[in-house]
Amino acid sequence: MERELVFYTNPWSRGAIVHWMLEELGVPYRMETLEYGTTMKAPEYLAINPMGKVPAIRHGDVVVTEAAAICAYLADAFPAAGLAPELQARGEYYRWLFFGAGPLEAALSLKPCGFTPTPEQQMQLGYGSYEAVVNTLAQAVKGRRYIAGDKFTAADVYLGSHIGWGMQFDSLEKRPEFEAYWAGLKDRPAHKRVAELSEQAAAQQTATQE
Amino acid sequence: MERELVFYTNPWSRGAIVHWMLEELGVPYRMETLEYGTTMKAPEYLAINPMGKVPAIRHGDVVVTEAAAICAYLADAFPAAGLAPELQARGEYYRWLFFGAGPLEAALSLKPCGFTPTPEQQMQLGYGSYEAVVNTLAQAVKGRRYIAGDKFTAADVYLGSHIGWGMQFDSLEKRPEFEAYWAGLKDRPAHKRVAELSEQAAAQQTATQE
Repeated sequence: MERELVFYTNPWSRGAIVHWMLEELGVPYRMETLEYGTTMKAPEYLAINPMGKVPAIRHGDVVVTEAAAICAYLADAFPAAGLAPELQARGEYYRWLFFGAGPLEAALSLKPCGFTPTPEQQMQLGYGSYEAVVNTLAQAVKGRRYIAGDKFTAADVYLGSHIGWGMQFDSLEKRPEFEAYWAGLKDRPAHKRVAELSEQAAAQQTATQE
Repeated sequence: MERELVFYTNPWSRGAIVHWMLEELGVPYRMETLEYGTTMKAPEYLAINPMGKVPAIRHGDVVVTEAAAICAYLADAFPAAGLAPELQARGEYYRWLFFGAGPLEAALSLKPCGFTPTPEQQMQLGYGSYEAVVNTLAQAVKGRRYIAGDKFTAADVYLGSHIGWGMQFDSLEKRPEFEAYWAGLKDRPAHKRVAELSEQAAAQQTATQE
């Protein structure tokens, strides 16, 4: 029997990264939309993710949380989609997945909080400075169509999402390297489907509030 | 020909996580110790890691940075060591590797910086609060010998390092769940070898400064 794949999300969350990943896989899944502060903090969902945040997935009896972890798991679990690279490219693959989930996520989300670490705090934080992170990212994607090897992988879904939405919401400055890399990803059919669904959800939300 | 494995580190860094991982693998490697502010920021090393931080590894022509990424890569690259789990446990494996590299790393390193996010900033940061992260971690390791499936994996090296050193350096509060999990890891021969080498390095450093 095929194991059920359930996707817990909210359109205004990092769940959109996983949504794109799921659409790239082309496998059936059931989407459960949770609301901030209510169903996201209800006992039923806290049993899935005690952090009370989305996204999460349940695949049979396997629960995975953290957007990057979900991308990496799904890529391995559905090898036919070809979104996990061969061993030769796994070094780059993990490098940029964890760079995205660690230093990049921290630098981009702390900046709008108005927190600028001192040199001493930069040592403590490990990620250094916003500038170091953005320069490293620019160097990583420069002249590359895909971030791990020469094929599209789950690492592009994850890193691309950070770059595309970072530029869209101004948490990441626009640079030619980012624009070029994102231009090679954003028109993928799976990403366009998710972007359209998000716009519809936004319109519906606005209509409900009026 | 076997590909050379080079380990760039400093004894006072997150490189100790990778050191433990390498000792668990039992494969030959060459260690290069870099100093903060000097060799770590030299052009030769910036070509390896533009962030100018350790750890990093070079395995033949594959360069990997970020401690968790290095652990995940080495586990896949040396399957004979059995430190990467089968698919059934890969969900938990990635979940806790990325939880460690993202929310846990952020929460534990921002706390000593004196930065306590407001509820609004908690949404922005994604990791929520220090309390949510620590409670989730305690629940994850409670009653478990290993974090992914029923075998020791690279995820235990990574998460165990955060927990063991977090308690040692007071960035993580001591709880029975953490003590029990760490007790099952800390006496592994590979970890003890690395701990002894670190103590020797510390003694040598102190002797040089006197």
